[in-house]
Amino acid sequence: MAGIFQRTVRLRAALRHLCPHSTLTCAARPSPADSPFLACGSGQFVASTRKLHAEPKSSPAAAPERLPFSRVTEEDLAYFRKILPGRTITDPDLVESSNVDWLRTVKGSSEVLLRPQTTEEVSQILRYCNSRNLAVNPQGGNTGLVGGSVPVYDEIILSTSLMNNILTFDNISGILTCQAGCVLENLSLYLEERDFIMPLDLGAKGSCQIGGNVATNAGGLRLLRYGSLHGTVLGLEVVLADGRVLDCLATLRKDNTGYDLKQLFIGSEGTLGVITAVSILCPRKPKSVNVVFLGCETFEQLLKTFQLCRGMLGEILSAFEFLDSECMRLLNTHLKLPNPISDCPFYIVIETSGSDPEHDSQKLHNFLEEAMTSTLVTDGTVATEESKIKALWSMRERVTEALTHDGFTYKYDISLPVERIYQLVTDMRQHLGDRAKSVVGYGHVGDGNLHLNITSPAKDPALLAAIEPFVYEWTAGCQGSISAEHGLGLKKRNYIYYSKPSQAVALMGNIKAMLDPKGILNPYKTLPDNLK
Amino acid sequence: MAGIFQRTVRLRAALRHLCPHSTLTCAARPSPADSPFLACGSGQFVASTRKLHAEPKSSPAAAPERLPFSRVTEEDLAYFRKILPGRTITDPDLVESSNVDWLRTVKGSSEVLLRPQTTEEVSQILRYCNSRNLAVNPQGGNTGLVGGSVPVYDEIILSTSLMNNILTFDNISGILTCQAGCVLENLSLYLEERDFIMPLDLGAKGSCQIGGNVATNAGGLRLLRYGSLHGTVLGLEVVLADGRVLDCLATLRKDNTGYDLKQLFIGSEGTLGVITAVSILCPRKPKSVNVVFLGCETFEQLLKTFQLCRGMLGEILSAFEFLDSECMRLLNTHLKLPNPISDCPFYIVIETSGSDPEHDSQKLHNFLEEAMTSTLVTDGTVATEESKIKALWSMRERVTEALTHDGFTYKYDISLPVERIYQLVTDMRQHLGDRAKSVVGYGHVGDGNLHLNITSPAKDPALLAAIEPFVYEWTAGCQGSISAEHGLGLKKRNYIYYSKPSQAVALMGNIKAMLDPKGILNPYKTLPDNLK
Repeated sequence: MAGIFQRTVRLRAALRHLCPHSTLTCAARPSPADSPFLACGSGQFVASTRKLHAEPKSSPAAAPERLPFSRVTEEDLAYFRKILPGRTITDPDLVESSNVDWLRTVKGSSEVLLRPQTTEEVSQILRYCNSRNLAVNPQGGNTGLVGGSVPVYDEIILSTSLMNNILTFDNISGILTCQAGCVLENLSLYLEERDFIMPLDLGAKGSCQIGGNVATNAGGLRLLRYGSLHGTVLGLEVVLADGRVLDCLATLRKDNTGYDLKQLFIGSEGTLGVITAVSILCPRKPKSVNVVFLGCETFEQLLKTFQLCRGMLGEILSAFEFLDSECMRLLNTHLKLPNPISDCPFYIVIETSGSDPEHDSQKLHNFLEEAMTSTLVTDGTVATEESKIKALWSMRERVTEALTHDGFTYKYDISLPVERIYQLVTDMRQHLGDRAKSVVGYGHVGDGNLHLNITSPAKDPALLAAIEPFVYEWTAGCQGSISAEHGLGLKKRNYIYYSKPSQAVALMGNIKAMLDPKGILNPYKTLPDNLK
Repeated sequence: MAGIFQRTVRLRAALRHLCPHSTLTCAARPSPADSPFLACGSGQFVASTRKLHAEPKSSPAAAPERLPFSRVTEEDLAYFRKILPGRTITDPDLVESSNVDWLRTVKGSSEVLLRPQTTEEVSQILRYCNSRNLAVNPQGGNTGLVGGSVPVYDEIILSTSLMNNILTFDNISGILTCQAGCVLENLSLYLEERDFIMPLDLGAKGSCQIGGNVATNAGGLRLLRYGSLHGTVLGLEVVLADGRVLDCLATLRKDNTGYDLKQLFIGSEGTLGVITAVSILCPRKPKSVNVVFLGCETFEQLLKTFQLCRGMLGEILSAFEFLDSECMRLLNTHLKLPNPISDCPFYIVIETSGSDPEHDSQKLHNFLEEAMTSTLVTDGTVATEESKIKALWSMRERVTEALTHDGFTYKYDISLPVERIYQLVTDMRQHLGDRAKSVVGYGHVGDGNLHLNITSPAKDPALLAAIEPFVYEWTAGCQGSISAEHGLGLKKRNYIYYSKPSQAVALMGNIKAMLDPKGILNPYKTLPDNLK
């Protein structure tokens, strides 16, 4: 027991020494506005400029032919200028950043960016566009990863950025209502001052907007504890394609009066309506937060650590994330983030959130002792102070950023039975051999959600052909999901049948036709091209 | 401090003395099969027999005229007998109990009860009924409280009772898949043997079925901790009106491939499809459970106790329920359940569930000490052993049963901002004066969910006229919901506009028309009669 305890002490000692000589920073993922990438010239979806990566027309990820929507005329612009004076943007330099996604893999050629401030303005815009058969691309923080947040051709961009007011907050129930354009981090800061937190958190928090989060059904880092948005979102206000305002903005925890319509819009990626306001149930801010960064020799040990952790940390466990040694290499190389512990094949980030610092610390101590006794983990460090917690979290949150520096990245966001998630990385590595530059795995172990990323020095159709449909077939073979939390957007829409039966996809098509008969809302996204 | 501590000690002493001279039992709510009520003679919806209570045709709760569905012929019966040999029930004595709801307020006159065992059989039944224009009443445990679970006229009863197989359970992820007819309590027992629990629990657990729970979007006692079924149900298999099988039976925690269709069926009361299988995320069984029964002088103090409790019990709080002194009187009078503490105007049942008995006990002790120091509570008792826990819980769970002995009961299940919930009881009492026998309030404080019940010696149209629309207008005035967790069924369908705008109700009608164009599934339920 003494030896075990010594090792626990070493973990704690490591914590004390973490900060002085660490260069870890807690920089959030850079927002699109701060992106180091240069703006590209105008052009259609297939990129005409040097740095923009787009799919060849032959790929199922490529855009289909432009649908016969109307083109924006001077009369249209005059109308928009009348209802949105000073907020109808047509200067190409200003529209540019809204035409390109954050990953710079999809680029539209929209010439109009509308910035409404109220639901009534959104309603006027859509009523007009629907009558004129003008396509519309609803846009939040434009941080999506599947090409769902930017126009494909000349769709009018409807930005929610100026709809950023908090409407109400009830500090008894913890229910927040706000406009769709509120930035997630701003909501978090607002709530933390009032002793509450948002039930979701993700790397893009500095730019992403709550409306976009809901439209994407974003998962993120707190899902393990607080569940999905289907449970925490209590109400939505949505403007339908024809301009009708659907008021389901309830602020009640329970409401069984008829069908729960708001659920349809959660995860529908702006294809069924434009979310203009959200009400959401927010948990109390935990009095005590700890983060542990651990190393494991095998993925099997990592899974056993997860099982042990769920049993021993129980109700205070708020995140269980992992990254592999390839991720660590990219963090070291591209972002100069040093490994806070010794080199291991696998790393775990565990977060606890509880109401009693002493109890939490004791639970954590007992867990670490047990994890080391049974040699499940080989090294680790603990953080209890906010700056150190952020530093450890950045090892997990900044992997996406490190990947963008490694080369062209093929990104996959897969749900699998938790015991299978790393097998896909191993199999993919073996399958690709030397053809890939890096094959890395990280993600949300607690949710069975793997982020598989493959890089190459440049865009490489041969590599892509080796990855797909291999990755989708492998996933389908385990009854997994080919999009756990990123959505389908433009890039993944035609792969939907790997995870959904045709009956279900056909029904989705019926719902789309019912709510948006002309198909003006975010066309070319979510649903496959061959939909009946 | 000594005095405070003494009072805490008194609480603990009360616990020790609770059992020896207590006659509290842990009987579950009697199942319909064990119901002491006599079966009634056959008849149409408007009751023709002495004990059955139904609404007069003039009430918005009464059934509309029978819709022009086909009537069951001998050829139909021959077909059903062919596909369901021995499970096509036409003996009136056997069909009887499925024609009457548990509260004995709605009675149909169905002559056929079908008991399929497989999804394929359900599909065959619906395909046939849809082609023949025969109406179908899907039925689970028939424990609903709004007349949603029984036929109104001669609809064919499709019972899921024989679809009671557990399909899979993954003890790493905690994901259970089972057929729709599994009884909730059986699932709980199965899981508890495997160190897990169901994320929902309710008084009717001994009879209600998981398919019915999902179709009703049942809330219950654990919602405060584990959230609603919209978050915990991961997948559904549903047979649509025309017999198509919609396979959304995913066993993944995250899946963003297209619209989340299963959500449509959660809370749709069998009007959009018949749920045949469910996959659900189950939490680990807590290692430590405590129940506290407390008394308060005012509802304001009760709310303050709730606030204190959320702060101090934090992540281990799993239920916060209340009942008023009128409920206690009915428990004493009709069920001979003695008050476990001294008489108070309000009683609270608090449950904690955690992973460390010592930590939980300490948190509870600190909370009780603080609650007594600040004189928020005036008396109380604590239970940690299972039999005592059940005894205390029965004080809350058996109120419904006590009410059935008090007379004819008018039941309301209201969501309100938590600080308003008891005001409705007080206002109703004042409004009704001597006209009501009892006006009682109990429910889920943590969810802002009030169960308001009003009794009279017999059915009393004048009393009803005094209650409604008063109760609905009062609720709508606070932006509340007129059905928090019971659904709308037959009885509340026409009151939907008190909680939902007409745009939303119209859209619900579009969805119904899309999924069930002939309207054969559970007609006369959920949606209002005047739907366009």
